[in-house]
Amino acid sequence: MKITNFKNVTAEKVSDPAAQGVTIRWLISDKDNAPNFAMRLFEVAPEGHTPYHQHPFEHEVFVLKGKGSLVVEGGEHPFGEGDAIFVPGGEKHQFKNASKDALVFLCMVPIEK
Amino acid sequence: MKITNFKNVTAEKVSDPAAQGVTIRWLISDKDNAPNFAMRLFEVAPEGHTPYHQHPFEHEVFVLKGKGSLVVEGGEHPFGEGDAIFVPGGEKHQFKNASKDALVFLCMVPIEK
Repeated sequence: MKITNFKNVTAEKVSDPAAQGVTIRWLISDKDNAPNFAMRLFEVAPEGHTPYHQHPFEHEVFVLKGKGSLVVEGGEHPFGEGDAIFVPGGEKHQFKNASKDALVFLCMVPIEK
Repeated sequence: MKITNFKNVTAEKVSDPAAQGVTIRWLISDKDNAPNFAMRLFEVAPEGHTPYHQHPFEHEVFVLKGKGSLVVEGGEHPFGEGDAIFVPGGEKHQFKNASKDALVFLCMVPIEK
């Protein structure tokens, strides 16, 4: 059993050059012996964004704070606080901050085995 | 790709008689073709609690609002907003509301295959 406030977890800069103004905090991961999936908290600065990319695994996102848009092939979809977002594996996607305040969301991913 | 606000998902009463004052909203599940894990949002009323039980699978929890305590074998641990909680499979656990306001948290579980 582990209880940790997200504020006590280091916010690491996402170093991918295709990301801008993004930090990640690994809240629960294989380091905790989580067997199936990991929980990360992202903060995206105003005008920041994650890479526009794709990968075989899915994302499950919950928006804690702020407003953003999800870019996928064929369009851009607004989202905000309290939204749950499912991005299936293989779909191109990008999370953009669409406001002047921080965008904060959880993003869960499966753990590679 | 799916975006849904949690408020638009029906809050179902948790019918387990060992639970008190608990609702669940299934935000992302196998019905969305999520392949590995599901996202649920729980609300626990003041003086409410989830069952004190155990199961082979893990919980990954993020506390959105309120204050509670996590009962495990050997003790009770307070938690609050912004806390990430990992309960490994096989560990007895119970989430109790410890305040006069609603306790709201996300709880992710693996999907049975």
